Amino acid sequence: MIPVDEARERLAAALRPLPVESVSLQDALGRVLAEPVVADRDFPPTDRSAMDGFAVRSVDLPSPGTLRVVAEVAAGTDPAGVAVGAGDACRVFTGAVIPHGADAVVMVERCEEDRKAGTVRVDDRPSAGQHIRHGGQDLAAGETVLSPGARIRPAEIAALASVGCVDVPVHRVPTVSVLSTGDEIVTPDREPAPHQVRNSNAAMLVAQVREAGYAAIDLGHAPDRPDELRQKLALGLESDLLLVTGGVSVGDYDLVPDTLAELGVETLFHGIAMKPGKPILAGRTRAGGVVLGLPGNPLSVFVGFKLFGESVLKAMSGIEDYWPRPRFVTLTGAIRRRPGRETYHLATIEGDEATPVSSTGSGDVLSLARGNALVVTEADASEAPAGATLRAFPF
Amino acid sequence: MIPVDEARERLAAALRPLPVESVSLQDALGRVLAEPVVADRDFPPTDRSAMDGFAVRSVDLPSPGTLRVVAEVAAGTDPAGVAVGAGDACRVFTGAVIPHGADAVVMVERCEEDRKAGTVRVDDRPSAGQHIRHGGQDLAAGETVLSPGARIRPAEIAALASVGCVDVPVHRVPTVSVLSTGDEIVTPDREPAPHQVRNSNAAMLVAQVREAGYAAIDLGHAPDRPDELRQKLALGLESDLLLVTGGVSVGDYDLVPDTLAELGVETLFHGIAMKPGKPILAGRTRAGGVVLGLPGNPLSVFVGFKLFGESVLKAMSGIEDYWPRPRFVTLTGAIRRRPGRETYHLATIEGDEATPVSSTGSGDVLSLARGNALVVTEADASEAPAGATLRAFPF
Repeated sequence: MIPVDEARERLAAALRPLPVESVSLQDALGRVLAEPVVADRDFPPTDRSAMDGFAVRSVDLPSPGTLRVVAEVAAGTDPAGVAVGAGDACRVFTGAVIPHGADAVVMVERCEEDRKAGTVRVDDRPSAGQHIRHGGQDLAAGETVLSPGARIRPAEIAALASVGCVDVPVHRVPTVSVLSTGDEIVTPDREPAPHQVRNSNAAMLVAQVREAGYAAIDLGHAPDRPDELRQKLALGLESDLLLVTGGVSVGDYDLVPDTLAELGVETLFHGIAMKPGKPILAGRTRAGGVVLGLPGNPLSVFVGFKLFGESVLKAMSGIEDYWPRPRFVTLTGAIRRRPGRETYHLATIEGDEATPVSSTGSGDVLSLARGNALVVTEADASEAPAGATLRAFPF
Repeated sequence: MIPVDEARERLAAALRPLPVESVSLQDALGRVLAEPVVADRDFPPTDRSAMDGFAVRSVDLPSPGTLRVVAEVAAGTDPAGVAVGAGDACRVFTGAVIPHGADAVVMVERCEEDRKAGTVRVDDRPSAGQHIRHGGQDLAAGETVLSPGARIRPAEIAALASVGCVDVPVHRVPTVSVLSTGDEIVTPDREPAPHQVRNSNAAMLVAQVREAGYAAIDLGHAPDRPDELRQKLALGLESDLLLVTGGVSVGDYDLVPDTLAELGVETLFHGIAMKPGKPILAGRTRAGGVVLGLPGNPLSVFVGFKLFGESVLKAMSGIEDYWPRPRFVTLTGAIRRRPGRETYHLATIEGDEATPVSSTGSGDVLSLARGNALVVTEADASEAPAGATLRAFPF
């Protein structure tokens, strides 16, 4: 058994971002940029009106006055051929290119237009540059818009679209397989006998992977027979991450660790001083993939994925800050516990306060849905008193 | 212009959860449960061993002693026919049904088995019930596992799988269309002329919708010509939510409001005392759908979706608490502003501190990617000083 921190370090040493690929703008959402993206033009590309109103020469209006309306330029209008001379004004709309000669915009609320006469009465004394967004003022052509490592959110999608980056260089996302073991489990659509339980782990893990932004293949159930187990594990090891549930303890029926070793998996660790999840196993395949063996009880599976699985996926997809970040919460009621292992308790967080969820143990699958966070008590503590500050991982 | 709160109220009055449909377990992720789900059996279904070890009769071990090993029961073993009599022990694994006659489990670490002799030396004085998870102790058959309104996370997926609920009754999720207007925009893959800009709004909105957990259809671009606009708008109004960008101000070219009215859309509001986003329009279709008209500049689109669009989608999919919940942050540097409208400033949040992002205005699309939150200054304030506590909406 090693401490949780050391498990993290050993796993981190085996994690690398996956190679770069090019994806479409929409497929880039959630991905991590692998190369810098620069502006292909100035932003804005030319001087633009920031208002609906009239483009004027500021020198013509030392005081309010009447100007001749010579043209109209909307946001989509090519203003070539439009010129604002002495005494002229040009009707403009927000986003319109400032026509040649004009150096200021007066907002429409300060203007009274006489369409018949072709004039506008301007009640303003504009300064040069007023209500104009200048070409290149946001960013100049060639400057960096987004840097490698940027996680692509909708805001980054907008930036990529604006500079015409429609083939986006990103890290490939990991492929994931989920394999269940254990002779006691049946698929959720079946009626289990009294000594059987429905397999909740596979569906939960597939959902956890999907919630994290990735896709998982459910390889189904491998019975506790060496040949079939080996065959299924070999298939799963073709993925970048294989998640196996059950069969990793030291019991007679726990065949997973030996079978993985026979398949060339290098063990990174097997056994962590944490609760639940003590028998968790992590290994590295020859091809650079990762396998996580999680004990078969649902809380261990949930916690194991949350603490390690999700981080493996993030690291492989190029996210640098890939470990879950705790927040700190105040415990509303005492938690009594046996010293020995860092313990992850199911809790509900409301504001900065955490209340433990009653659970009968790591087999109590139904208790999970009553919580929204895991709170952590340290290895050597015999109690976390009410009012204690604990690390929390919301989910 | 109405205050933001009143805009929320008017919109809320038009929002209803969509009808119920049945989806598969995996498709239920992110959905909202529409009917209660009850346990179809006890949890656990029978008394189970919580450990690897030996099932014994506690009366046989008032002090450490040696017992006869009569059978072995694993998690998947049907224990019918196995009985633990006086002086007997049965080898059990975690999750195994407790065989008839036994009332306690001794963990394997306290046992020394002699396989040749068929006996086990037990160094423990177990109390009745020790290391046994009792049938029904988590939940009894018929009790409620999940209630209507529950948002289905991976934890709920596990609960649904456990009780065999593989056809999950959930609210339908809204369909969404995105329509762009404005003669100045070209698609992101094109080289724009100096008076043109690439359309970043459509890609951003589709990504915002997707990030919120829904899917959007991009209807493309409607030129500022009444017939084509009307045709595209009519198509978009077939969705549960139509998001239109551009064309909602009071300028000569802003045709969207009148065209929507002609198409039978009832205006809920048009004009909000907020910045950016003053011209935002919301309407309700005859079929109960919603349309949001957002001004064409990218920050207005982003803020408009974040404040209103996402909530419409949540409400329609059955989420009760659908308005974005602010958190409170401390401003690191002063924000000067003109009193009048509630203002949403781009900022970066680190811990509880918010720093404004420099931006040249609501047309500065590239500034969005430098922020991770919107912070709010109130309508009547002329300044938010450093150290002020502001509402923040992280993104």
